[in-house]
Amino acid sequence: MKVCIIGCGAIGSLFGAHLAKLDDVEVWAYDPNAAHVDAINKNGLRLTGLADIVAPVQARTDAAQIPDCDFGIIAAKTLHTRAAMEATARIFRNGAVCSVQNGVGNEEIIAEYVPRVILGTTFPAGHITAPGVVNQDTGGKTWIGPFAPKPAPMVEVERLADAMNRSGMTCVPMADARGALWTKLIFNSASNAMGALTRLPHGIACEQVWPVMFALAQEGIAVAKALGVTLDGDPVALLEYGKKVAYRHKPSMLQDVLAERATEVDALNGGIARIGKEVGVPTPLNDAMAVMIKGLEHSWTLKD
Amino acid sequence: MKVCIIGCGAIGSLFGAHLAKLDDVEVWAYDPNAAHVDAINKNGLRLTGLADIVAPVQARTDAAQIPDCDFGIIAAKTLHTRAAMEATARIFRNGAVCSVQNGVGNEEIIAEYVPRVILGTTFPAGHITAPGVVNQDTGGKTWIGPFAPKPAPMVEVERLADAMNRSGMTCVPMADARGALWTKLIFNSASNAMGALTRLPHGIACEQVWPVMFALAQEGIAVAKALGVTLDGDPVALLEYGKKVAYRHKPSMLQDVLAERATEVDALNGGIARIGKEVGVPTPLNDAMAVMIKGLEHSWTLKD
Repeated sequence: MKVCIIGCGAIGSLFGAHLAKLDDVEVWAYDPNAAHVDAINKNGLRLTGLADIVAPVQARTDAAQIPDCDFGIIAAKTLHTRAAMEATARIFRNGAVCSVQNGVGNEEIIAEYVPRVILGTTFPAGHITAPGVVNQDTGGKTWIGPFAPKPAPMVEVERLADAMNRSGMTCVPMADARGALWTKLIFNSASNAMGALTRLPHGIACEQVWPVMFALAQEGIAVAKALGVTLDGDPVALLEYGKKVAYRHKPSMLQDVLAERATEVDALNGGIARIGKEVGVPTPLNDAMAVMIKGLEHSWTLKD
Repeated sequence: MKVCIIGCGAIGSLFGAHLAKLDDVEVWAYDPNAAHVDAINKNGLRLTGLADIVAPVQARTDAAQIPDCDFGIIAAKTLHTRAAMEATARIFRNGAVCSVQNGVGNEEIIAEYVPRVILGTTFPAGHITAPGVVNQDTGGKTWIGPFAPKPAPMVEVERLADAMNRSGMTCVPMADARGALWTKLIFNSASNAMGALTRLPHGIACEQVWPVMFALAQEGIAVAKALGVTLDGDPVALLEYGKKVAYRHKPSMLQDVLAERATEVDALNGGIARIGKEVGVPTPLNDAMAVMIKGLEHSWTLKD
């Protein structure tokens, strides 16, 4: 089968390199980073850290050079979901696209472009250390399931999960993966907003600003409940677990703030705020975080 | 009469230099900044910008060298209120001390040290441009009145206001100046918290993060009402007025954040949160801002 990674950065590379080890999977990658693409084509895609892999991936900056694929795995930043799908939709005219991105709202956009969508959420993390090289920082599971308005059939979801599991990743196919997605969303909305605004790593934020993290999580839990989503575990317990295993980890939005890059807040706190409004659950703190982090992004455009 | 400025930084210097122009007022200053003190003693205290004054002020880093005074005007950062009063209390054993500091809670501390207290709030702003030199950036009124638990009599409040008015400042003596103090407190809690966390100047914050500023102000207004304080005008209108006259002004807490200095948040959002709790009014957004800004301060102590 043919798989195309859409957005082959840190997370996309973890999936791409693992899958490319399999004899029956041909992995393509679409990414706008020409240096990274060139290095992958020349030397293979290399994982270091928790994984030690060099795998053959055919990477392209031009989606027109990629053949039709059975599956897409989109790992682009949420900000770039629409642009990435605009560029790659043709590849999946007969395929299914699975999101492993952060936050909510990605699958809705993907569904505008492809016939079948798989909703997903993933825990492994990594970072690019050189063109063509990604360090896997942490492991963890991936959960995938049909996305209701335009679902891939369960057999197709299981086929993708099977390939991931054979490749050395851990993927759980579910009839309804929204619980896993919302659990990570709520975790992220608390940890990332505090990172972005207070510049504290995850564990230290848990110590210093816990009342705000806890209150943010409670709002998210209330929205999930009103939405009819059964959470996959307690996001508050997950925050506390993260304090142990990711004490000094800088959440991705903190990394974005330090680099003065646009953040994923619209899909995190902004997503909870938007859906809260739809289901009639007030989310004043998530509303405030979404507004403030957009304000912080705006501050980077000002001259002194 | 003898007046001692306690904390002769930007704000204290505005009061000290104006009052020192008067023949019947002898002005002393207590400040820990030796270079500033030396320059004041050598060249006089100079104001530039909106004011153009060079006035004789006797400045000291050692409070023991300052004679008993009739009035103190404390303009120290709220963080230093207790240390400043510890050092200078003796000077006012027969006097009254008037706070022109930001926020709430200062008068309570001052009252532990001196027999009579005057509550105050002031709008003029400035900044030190060189040792002994302060630029007055903006004008505005000062409101003063007896502080209830340990009040200076109204005649004493009026005597200080009269000196200020003769010196070229504008001071309004009131039987109850809490309304003016709370109006500025609520203004500051919204403008400063947004400045500290989003790094936006006042007017741009009004444009970018208005829903949060408005909600912060509403909480403060509710607390003032429950406390029985009649506000001196509408803090929301004041925020909007500030958008016009202080569009690019960086609130003091933003200046503190950029310099990685401890902020006055405990007397601003933290003060509203604390008093809200006392009077039974929920202030979830001010609570969150107080916690987050302390968290941001903590981030400066971390090594990468």
